[in-house]
Amino acid sequence: MPYGYNGKILRVDLNSESISIEEPQEILYSRYLGGGTLALYYLLRELKPKSDPLGPENILVFAGSVISGTPAAGLSRFSVAAKSPETGGFGEAEAGGWWIPELKFAGFDAIVIKGKANRPVYLWVHDGQAEIRDAGHLWGKFPKETQDEIRRELGDDRIRIALIGPAGEKLAKVACIINELKHANGRTGLGAVMGSKNLKAIAVRGKKRMEVADGEAVQRLSKRLKDTYEEPYFSVGNLGTSRVTTMFSEQGILPTLNFRKGSFEGAEAIGGETMSKTILVRRGTCYGCFVRCKREVQVGEPYFVDPIYGGPEYETVAAFGSMCGIDDLKAISKANQLCNAYGLDTISTGSLISFAMECYEKGVLTKRDTDGLELQFGNTEAMIKMVEKIGNREGLGDILAEGICHAAKKFGKGAENFAIHVKGMPVPFHEPRGKVGVGLGYAVSATGPDHMEFPHDPWWATEAGVTLLRPLGIFEPLDVFDIGPKKVRIFIYLQQYWDLLNTLGICMFTAKPFGPQTFNGIVDYVKAVTGWETSLFDLLKVAERHTHMARIFNLREGFTAQDDTLPDRFFQPMEGGTLKGKKIDREEFARALEAYYEMLGWDTETGVPKKGKLAELDLDWLT
Amino acid sequence: MPYGYNGKILRVDLNSESISIEEPQEILYSRYLGGGTLALYYLLRELKPKSDPLGPENILVFAGSVISGTPAAGLSRFSVAAKSPETGGFGEAEAGGWWIPELKFAGFDAIVIKGKANRPVYLWVHDGQAEIRDAGHLWGKFPKETQDEIRRELGDDRIRIALIGPAGEKLAKVACIINELKHANGRTGLGAVMGSKNLKAIAVRGKKRMEVADGEAVQRLSKRLKDTYEEPYFSVGNLGTSRVTTMFSEQGILPTLNFRKGSFEGAEAIGGETMSKTILVRRGTCYGCFVRCKREVQVGEPYFVDPIYGGPEYETVAAFGSMCGIDDLKAISKANQLCNAYGLDTISTGSLISFAMECYEKGVLTKRDTDGLELQFGNTEAMIKMVEKIGNREGLGDILAEGICHAAKKFGKGAENFAIHVKGMPVPFHEPRGKVGVGLGYAVSATGPDHMEFPHDPWWATEAGVTLLRPLGIFEPLDVFDIGPKKVRIFIYLQQYWDLLNTLGICMFTAKPFGPQTFNGIVDYVKAVTGWETSLFDLLKVAERHTHMARIFNLREGFTAQDDTLPDRFFQPMEGGTLKGKKIDREEFARALEAYYEMLGWDTETGVPKKGKLAELDLDWLT
Repeated sequence: MPYGYNGKILRVDLNSESISIEEPQEILYSRYLGGGTLALYYLLRELKPKSDPLGPENILVFAGSVISGTPAAGLSRFSVAAKSPETGGFGEAEAGGWWIPELKFAGFDAIVIKGKANRPVYLWVHDGQAEIRDAGHLWGKFPKETQDEIRRELGDDRIRIALIGPAGEKLAKVACIINELKHANGRTGLGAVMGSKNLKAIAVRGKKRMEVADGEAVQRLSKRLKDTYEEPYFSVGNLGTSRVTTMFSEQGILPTLNFRKGSFEGAEAIGGETMSKTILVRRGTCYGCFVRCKREVQVGEPYFVDPIYGGPEYETVAAFGSMCGIDDLKAISKANQLCNAYGLDTISTGSLISFAMECYEKGVLTKRDTDGLELQFGNTEAMIKMVEKIGNREGLGDILAEGICHAAKKFGKGAENFAIHVKGMPVPFHEPRGKVGVGLGYAVSATGPDHMEFPHDPWWATEAGVTLLRPLGIFEPLDVFDIGPKKVRIFIYLQQYWDLLNTLGICMFTAKPFGPQTFNGIVDYVKAVTGWETSLFDLLKVAERHTHMARIFNLREGFTAQDDTLPDRFFQPMEGGTLKGKKIDREEFARALEAYYEMLGWDTETGVPKKGKLAELDLDWLT
Repeated sequence: MPYGYNGKILRVDLNSESISIEEPQEILYSRYLGGGTLALYYLLRELKPKSDPLGPENILVFAGSVISGTPAAGLSRFSVAAKSPETGGFGEAEAGGWWIPELKFAGFDAIVIKGKANRPVYLWVHDGQAEIRDAGHLWGKFPKETQDEIRRELGDDRIRIALIGPAGEKLAKVACIINELKHANGRTGLGAVMGSKNLKAIAVRGKKRMEVADGEAVQRLSKRLKDTYEEPYFSVGNLGTSRVTTMFSEQGILPTLNFRKGSFEGAEAIGGETMSKTILVRRGTCYGCFVRCKREVQVGEPYFVDPIYGGPEYETVAAFGSMCGIDDLKAISKANQLCNAYGLDTISTGSLISFAMECYEKGVLTKRDTDGLELQFGNTEAMIKMVEKIGNREGLGDILAEGICHAAKKFGKGAENFAIHVKGMPVPFHEPRGKVGVGLGYAVSATGPDHMEFPHDPWWATEAGVTLLRPLGIFEPLDVFDIGPKKVRIFIYLQQYWDLLNTLGICMFTAKPFGPQTFNGIVDYVKAVTGWETSLFDLLKVAERHTHMARIFNLREGFTAQDDTLPDRFFQPMEGGTLKGKKIDREEFARALEAYYEMLGWDTETGVPKKGKLAELDLDWLT
């Protein structure tokens, strides 16, 4: 009997509305572990290249890992993956919450969904079974109503539901999947994939608990994680992820006014401290986690914001705050709630609005294009209206909902200069000119620029940070602006680390700066749960596998090395803020990319993984 | 204060007869650990390419590791390294015994020797000090007399001495270094390098003990290793390394008559069981080891064999037994003693004699060339005479002592067809046609074909063997004849494993088939000793570093991809034995080599490591 996982994959064919259960060999779990890596296994084997991402042929995978649903804190994350309608390449996004433990308790490790139902449906998974149910009455409904109705009709208040809002139904390319109304698989437009399949929701409930190989060790490691957690330093529990807003602004790395500046005068007004002191009503959390970094905020006037939809994360604060020149935390919270209600990715949505604001400022867009909205930076009302317009696909919102490249092309007049994206997806809010390793991460990430995979952020450049890299054979911190071969080396190791976190569904806030669960702690924990004699070597090979599988996926879809780049803006001097004048050197960056390819065993010109390298990763089936 | 190591490297300049002590940063030990890897660090930095291996410019390094001299069994091994006079490339050989623990107790982790003394000298290292002493009275003496005299004049019977015999003094390219009269750093001709420096011996004695970071863990892991040791299966303790002789013959992989056959009718007569039942007087051992695999044999008639010189290992049994067509264990034991007394590598010496025998059989050599010896296969007396002739550099022995390529050239008449070597060094006695992974190892090893680095021997092709590979992410055994990409993958991981064993000085007989100390056990032990938060990832990167550093060394000396090959004989059918007719497919083998290069990040045509790969290994200083 397997430990930690169920050994069961739920397969759903929406064309025929049929369900089956696959019971893979242990080796599948050993080689791919879970999350995006396991999803890539199915996508690469079963999805025909060049498929329409919004066609019935696209495959949508919800995947936990071999440790999801076990007791340690920070294991609540899971991946949804498919071909992305936003980038046209590998689409993947993670979310926390309570959904994946519940799926594991219901007896499944992952769900692989194909086809398209000929009517709105939802999937009901419970206690080793699954059924496809009509969702005609739910279509068009917001998440709260949808969740209430499903729980009511299934007669269980503890059902966990991942669903889409109106944006996903309407195939907005920036639509996300939401669970528990506030945890989002945000990026790469996976909500639209769900919508294209006429799949409104996946409701899960299960009563089993995961068996582990060494219960005593699991308890001990879980306790150690909690006992050694360093809240005072990291303070994400107290202040939420937006604890960094003010600091970033001071350091000049808070993306402001569509990445023209790195400092924002309203940073303090929108930051985590202000949120805690004003609108925060509760610290939320995910399954089994003591950190409680999630926010639940309430606003009465001038906008009604319901804490049931959570509260804005850092990315959201930057998206609707500094990026749009808005220093009103209540407005930001409203935008956040609207995104969760419509099922919109806050990063892409905020970025699209910031982009449209710059277009408006530069005269590319006029009031005629905006249905009369004065779309200046700083116009709070206009920002909120635009979120609704994108969610409803109305007017300018309809154009933006098709994605930033589509919109830039439609607008013309040089709008593409203001479209800050990589591979068609807007860039998250970590200023690459101020942390160049993150910039390299944006350029090479298969899923487009990804705030959940940004190797070598400034933490690792500190003495305290680098100490944790000892198990990787890294001894010396490197400057955040460095992008030479030594940095690329660290970058690659840390990219594998991020890929491992995302594969296993480990939250960075329990994994990163806290000793026990970092690196060897992760190994110990996977050993204790699964009983496998694994190692950091083995686990990082799985992560390396992820990088290569995602690369192969994108190459099949027609991506080339030319897609591994950054928007021109990052090679230009910053226009304002603490790092005013700072830019990335284009040639240094090109050399770093070449080094990156070479270190990974890819052709330095084409970025194509060498056959031998794939074989070395036990991926010869991909050659 | 460092744990496990002294933080002190003894530097000796024989030109000026001066001594100094280097105290490197911890990072040097972390990055290179010890053994051949640490030696390569010094050789690559300080030895000018194309130096004469027997000139004063060559650098000779004796290196232990960060765990040498700590309590667990099987940590008695150390490396001697220099530019090899036998191959012209990287020369390195390991030996067990008691010498390296004693050096650590004397306060040093390694000795780096340059220059040439203008008179015979020996080095006396004790309790943090060192002195160069006259060895005029020792020059020309055999090891036993030398050892007795040094111990007498220094007044301490427990001094451990590594020394050369007459062959090393006379610069025989197959001369080795011997410690305690019976443990040999056998291969690559390092005894000649020592001789060329006028350095007769290194005597060491120390009274300190190594401090460890976690004494309790060190004790626990050492005990676990002992408690779980599976003697009945592996039986190397009971029967010595030549336990495999009979089995190999049955399987058709016992090199016989200069690699023409794989089975030998006299196998049982020369094997480990016979040795145990007849001439064995004691099971010898190394520092701290319970396995006691070493042999001490005694013969009265017709040859006097003194147990003080030990007894033949498997390689020696095959060298003078099946390779020479001799089924007389007493004669083999005599040849072994002569090799230890003259300071000759038994593998190269036996191979040279077997080669000469085939030359004699084929008419390339006649009685005129052999000083009247009837040098047929099976002629026991002639074999023993030839060992002495090589040791004394007399007649035919003088030619052979210059190495197999030199001799083949000198003999002419197609003799090169019978010279079974790679990179100028005779092949050890593991038949590559019967374990093709080992053949690949012979072809690519930087030190020439190496019996201490033969990845994927048949053990790993068993279900029991492959189970131990779980920490490497290897789940399925592969056939011994397989040489496809999946095998090359396993090969590379196991090559790193071997490089790690040789770097840390871990004996395969405590490391290999025994659970605890394999892979994760090694990591746990290094952690416990050093206190470093290392990992299998980190340690295998050091090993990968070894492979690349050795490669760079050889490239600097003019080696090319063409040197990574096997003698033609292995691409021809075996002439006899269980595997009669078996050969290696030349094209398959070429593809395996290409895959090997590609997996390592080397150019597939030239075998040159890519710049990016070197940077990834933190070896950008070599680009």
